[in-house]
Amino acid sequence: MDIAKLLAENSEKIDVYLEKYLQTDEKELETLYEAMRYSTLSGGKRIRPFLVMEFCRLFGGCEEAAIPFACAIEYVHTSSLIHDDMPCMDNDALRRGRPTNHVVFGEDIALLAGDALITRGYEMAARNAEVEPSTALAATAMLLYHAGAVGMMGGQEIDLLSEGKKTDFSTLMKMHEKKTGALIRAACLLGVMAAGITDERDERYNAAVKYARGVGLTFQIIDDILDVEGDAALLGKATHADAALEKTTFLSFMSIDEAKDYAKKLTEEAIAAIAPFDGNEALTELAKFLLTRKK
Amino acid sequence: MDIAKLLAENSEKIDVYLEKYLQTDEKELETLYEAMRYSTLSGGKRIRPFLVMEFCRLFGGCEEAAIPFACAIEYVHTSSLIHDDMPCMDNDALRRGRPTNHVVFGEDIALLAGDALITRGYEMAARNAEVEPSTALAATAMLLYHAGAVGMMGGQEIDLLSEGKKTDFSTLMKMHEKKTGALIRAACLLGVMAAGITDERDERYNAAVKYARGVGLTFQIIDDILDVEGDAALLGKATHADAALEKTTFLSFMSIDEAKDYAKKLTEEAIAAIAPFDGNEALTELAKFLLTRKK
Repeated sequence: MDIAKLLAENSEKIDVYLEKYLQTDEKELETLYEAMRYSTLSGGKRIRPFLVMEFCRLFGGCEEAAIPFACAIEYVHTSSLIHDDMPCMDNDALRRGRPTNHVVFGEDIALLAGDALITRGYEMAARNAEVEPSTALAATAMLLYHAGAVGMMGGQEIDLLSEGKKTDFSTLMKMHEKKTGALIRAACLLGVMAAGITDERDERYNAAVKYARGVGLTFQIIDDILDVEGDAALLGKATHADAALEKTTFLSFMSIDEAKDYAKKLTEEAIAAIAPFDGNEALTELAKFLLTRKK
Repeated sequence: MDIAKLLAENSEKIDVYLEKYLQTDEKELETLYEAMRYSTLSGGKRIRPFLVMEFCRLFGGCEEAAIPFACAIEYVHTSSLIHDDMPCMDNDALRRGRPTNHVVFGEDIALLAGDALITRGYEMAARNAEVEPSTALAATAMLLYHAGAVGMMGGQEIDLLSEGKKTDFSTLMKMHEKKTGALIRAACLLGVMAAGITDERDERYNAAVKYARGVGLTFQIIDDILDVEGDAALLGKATHADAALEKTTFLSFMSIDEAKDYAKKLTEEAIAAIAPFDGNEALTELAKFLLTRKK
């Protein structure tokens, strides 16, 4: 199984829908929609939509039910990138090799585009007509919970307040479990819900939660390692940024080798969580891919 | 019927819930929640929550069903104020006589607080357990639609792009119908839905739509008039701001007397829309109050 190929095929499919649901007939709104499309359609790997699609498939759901949720999670994710890049936050002028949203459209439109994109994401979840209304409602509430103050946005706040000062390991874990972990978990659970499973006690629901935790933390540990020993050209961004910002990372608490061992252990836990279910190959390969990625 | 007293009583009631649903036990998130509470609990008139409560009551719904929706709309509204005040938007240092969110907490936290507050608002709607799940879903989707790119945020975009240049009357109307009109309409419809009515063909649903249009446009026309002939001390903000920003307003197309007549006609239309329903007094008085307000 070639995971890079699977991811590429998935991106190609999802990108069509991501573009389709960001259209307007109102000429006055064209600038806003253009800004929303600009950052969304910039060639990401679409890891989160892939998680939605694959968990839905793993648990017997149909693709049509997963697609709106896949778009929802990617819009929410992209919104966070637009706001993160703004001068008052990380002040990044480049992302994925292209000028960031506010550089192209101005800070005012970028701020609005982020607001409108996250709202569109939530709306895509709420308007998923391929699942039962009660399932769409549960999925929307779950997504809102994971994106909001106790989830991703809370993680961003902890990250901001941690800059330039030492934090302990439990705060670092909490920050990552929220900042990147919450949306990865939401992605997996959207897939589970697209397959009609909304009961938190269901073993399949719990398998997704465990998989998400392992994969989410691994993603972050590898991020920290690549910032130290990665290839800036391959990564498409400067390395050693964490040290420059005096950020606390996993490498503040362990050696690179220890961090690699920890990531390997977390990946094994993720893989073990979905091992009982037939058809887990793509998700198993994805977990390995995220462990060994060079960019 | 003393509408000022009714509004004050409603504010007092709603403020308790607005505060209650912005609490955290996680000490790492306290700054974010404090920022969210700061702008929310700053003594607004709570017009939108009042609309939710009164439309619910008018159509026989119970208060418990309306309260989560009332909080939802106020969180969404407050989020838009936080982002609007930021330096890259209107760059306002004061609102309701207090320093704006970014002045107190910094732009980074203000940006996140706006994101988290709007997400909390949507979540309040989705988690309204006092209505049927299908009703909560319909209400959430409706709120998302009215807040997003085709609604409030689209109106903000049109407003931004119109600054310093002449726009025609239809663009001005479109801007206002979205920028302030969409949330006022959403507030009225949340009340209707809290009473269990989700059918767009229902005469009560349509009455709310008509009332919202009249009240929303009146609100904006009076805003434009007060900017010219209002009392800055009473308003708590500088007047003649529109002229300074070369903004197109209703007064770009008509005299103050004509604008007053137009607002009166719109208010009469709003009142006529709810006239057939017993118990319309509070909403009737509110429409008159918004027409004659001095601040």
